[in-house]
Amino acid sequence: MASYLVTGASRGLGLALISRLATLPPTEVGTIIATARSDNSPQLKELVSNSLGRVEWVKLDVCDQSSILAAIGEIEAKLQGKGLDYLVNNVGMADWGSNGLQGMNNIDEVFHTNVTSTHMVTQALLPLLRKGSKKTVVNISTTVGSFAKAKAFWAAPVPAYRVTKAALNMLTVQYAQEYESEGFTVVAVSPGWLRTDLGGDRADLPVEVGAEKTVDVIQNLTSSQNGKFLNIHVPGWENAPGNNQYPGGETGW
Amino acid sequence: MASYLVTGASRGLGLALISRLATLPPTEVGTIIATARSDNSPQLKELVSNSLGRVEWVKLDVCDQSSILAAIGEIEAKLQGKGLDYLVNNVGMADWGSNGLQGMNNIDEVFHTNVTSTHMVTQALLPLLRKGSKKTVVNISTTVGSFAKAKAFWAAPVPAYRVTKAALNMLTVQYAQEYESEGFTVVAVSPGWLRTDLGGDRADLPVEVGAEKTVDVIQNLTSSQNGKFLNIHVPGWENAPGNNQYPGGETGW
Repeated sequence: MASYLVTGASRGLGLALISRLATLPPTEVGTIIATARSDNSPQLKELVSNSLGRVEWVKLDVCDQSSILAAIGEIEAKLQGKGLDYLVNNVGMADWGSNGLQGMNNIDEVFHTNVTSTHMVTQALLPLLRKGSKKTVVNISTTVGSFAKAKAFWAAPVPAYRVTKAALNMLTVQYAQEYESEGFTVVAVSPGWLRTDLGGDRADLPVEVGAEKTVDVIQNLTSSQNGKFLNIHVPGWENAPGNNQYPGGETGW
Repeated sequence: MASYLVTGASRGLGLALISRLATLPPTEVGTIIATARSDNSPQLKELVSNSLGRVEWVKLDVCDQSSILAAIGEIEAKLQGKGLDYLVNNVGMADWGSNGLQGMNNIDEVFHTNVTSTHMVTQALLPLLRKGSKKTVVNISTTVGSFAKAKAFWAAPVPAYRVTKAALNMLTVQYAQEYESEGFTVVAVSPGWLRTDLGGDRADLPVEVGAEKTVDVIQNLTSSQNGKFLNIHVPGWENAPGNNQYPGGETGW
């Protein structure tokens, strides 16, 4: 009966992660806290109201430190005295553009959204995570931001996304290093290229598949994976033309 | 007779790079442009006035787009109609602190200084670099920001420095990929841990050694090194206790 908090849950992967978690038996998944900047998502509202109190919504703008601090008390109340087991830092933005580096004019904003927010949210939730039994932080990243696959993704028209996800990966490594002695497991997970507002229509996978496989990765995490960069496993992609993008296991930074 | 522009030249590695370049024969090094936020560096002033017009100072705050644009005309004038051969993006800041990630509260500023500035300066200088014969961009990075050496540097109390230098490295990879077809060579160079205001007193090497060895790397660059992360070579470190930090050649991201 582990508790989860997923940021950016009003749409896309965040919403799909919440939906997936809500289908799992209460013996595995307890309280699910869905955070979002505003309550304008009918899908999230429906999830919350159909969940019989299992899915809880908390207003939280991860880019705004005062919003984070304001939300902590409410999150604590939703957990009813228990700790938080899993924090999934899911909020992210990409800078799709056709003009390459010349067109990259919002990298500070992308960094704040993809990296600084993760740091601020994780710091603020550390006391509740310390109280939890899993002490697990999952940063949603992407192989598009990896040096190991840089050649394969050279033409990906998301330059600030690539730069900031490499930065998020190094933040993940440092969290893993610094909090290992307290029993934390901190990982980066690449959820696949998903058909969402962020991923676009040409992406590889339906968002539901990415969410299901990401939850699989999270539920099977062990402390020996602390500080690793993990990929989802999607059966069938072994035979895909070109590289198998979704073999599961560890992937190169 | 290649031309050079080095940012952040009022002190530290930037000043030492300019000093080193100024000792090389005019057959190798032509105009040397030293940029800095202000002209409050007596050492740089002396270098300029002793150089008989070879070292030129240009006021440039790399963190400020309007300052960059205002400086372009002056840089162009100093080059007297020629292109710029080597751009060395040297400006950087570190966030020394004793409180780990909990104390990391200025990561947006460190990112802007270490990454966004490099992007803005490089974009603004592209027309002059295209006109040059070397078309080389050197981003001063550090192995402290590499995943390959993350274990070795786990205790380095500069969390935002590590995150943002990983980001700078991914920016470097993308510049190398995007401009390769135009004949550019873009690399990241780790200049060693140097005794400067940034590196502190306990660092491995005098700044002059780091500057000399970094200039060696730059002068020996070939187009086959485009997109690589390069280390300096300091003879003698082969026998140092622990790892040899300065073996030269390529180093892991």
